[in-house]
Amino acid sequence: MDLIKKLHNIIEEGDLWDGEILLKRNQFLKVAKSIDTNLYYVISGSIKISVISENNEHIIRFGYKNNFTASLDSFISEKPSDFCIQAIKETKLKFITKKTHTKLINHNTDNQLLWTSILEQMVVQQLERERDLLMFTPKERFEKVFQRSPHLFQEIPKKHIASYLRMTPETLSRLEKS
Amino acid sequence: MDLIKKLHNIIEEGDLWDGEILLKRNQFLKVAKSIDTNLYYVISGSIKISVISENNEHIIRFGYKNNFTASLDSFISEKPSDFCIQAIKETKLKFITKKTHTKLINHNTDNQLLWTSILEQMVVQQLERERDLLMFTPKERFEKVFQRSPHLFQEIPKKHIASYLRMTPETLSRLEKS
Repeated sequence: MDLIKKLHNIIEEGDLWDGEILLKRNQFLKVAKSIDTNLYYVISGSIKISVISENNEHIIRFGYKNNFTASLDSFISEKPSDFCIQAIKETKLKFITKKTHTKLINHNTDNQLLWTSILEQMVVQQLERERDLLMFTPKERFEKVFQRSPHLFQEIPKKHIASYLRMTPETLSRLEKS
Repeated sequence: MDLIKKLHNIIEEGDLWDGEILLKRNQFLKVAKSIDTNLYYVISGSIKISVISENNEHIIRFGYKNNFTASLDSFISEKPSDFCIQAIKETKLKFITKKTHTKLINHNTDNQLLWTSILEQMVVQQLERERDLLMFTPKERFEKVFQRSPHLFQEIPKKHIASYLRMTPETLSRLEKS
């Protein structure tokens, strides 16, 4: 079983969810400069995590069905963060607070090791993203994401995928046709 | 005491170092596509971690005196990684293998929690770097690094700092003078 599923099941079996949130399309879950120490799980819909600079939005992650999402820097540090979280479409989330998370992780060694493995996976994924953006051409980046996450192209508007891949929507559309 | 110092002291007190390496200036510790599952500690000198794309080097991290360094993706996944590690000047390192690290982490809850905290710090630092490159102008990136790590400018040649900050050496030199 993958790590995400394991963590979900532990929360589910312990009846530990702290609440549910329904976001309208384009509604913000978190705005820049705010603190958000919840860990969210997407029941339906999808969200984007981004930074805004001089009126340009740069998407760094997506959160979609059956995955966890958070402003991880704020979740970990409990400080304000520059990232925004916004619903791409109507989105239903469950969440646990940092307090619940801490209790859960400290409950036993297995949970502690699970969280460590999730963090290790995140470190590797972040390094892979950093490498992909430096080493690969737009065409290669497009192909990699298309192979790894084909569902993204059903779920997420093209302009958002283009922002995530650091290319213009025109380049993405050209690559899709080729 | 900071996390790095704590981890260093645990290894030191347990006499757990697996070896020492002396690198000549420009010598590679790790080349692209290789596996390296050691965790290094810099005794003296400095190293750079980079990816090469079409003959261009992109530096993503530095390792310097009294800090740990590794090709973290390979260390965690135990798979080949695209990153290179190269000595900037003559560099002396100590290291522990993954096997020693695993033993150490599983030795007791305190060590386990220390590793979790180090991973959390890494996730936050990676997100901050991603944000900095997206949100800040070259001038702001220069000022941030200069404030946070002034020693970098004594230790590391300017052209490497420029690569790390994703600007040309000419831009960096202009910003230093202004």
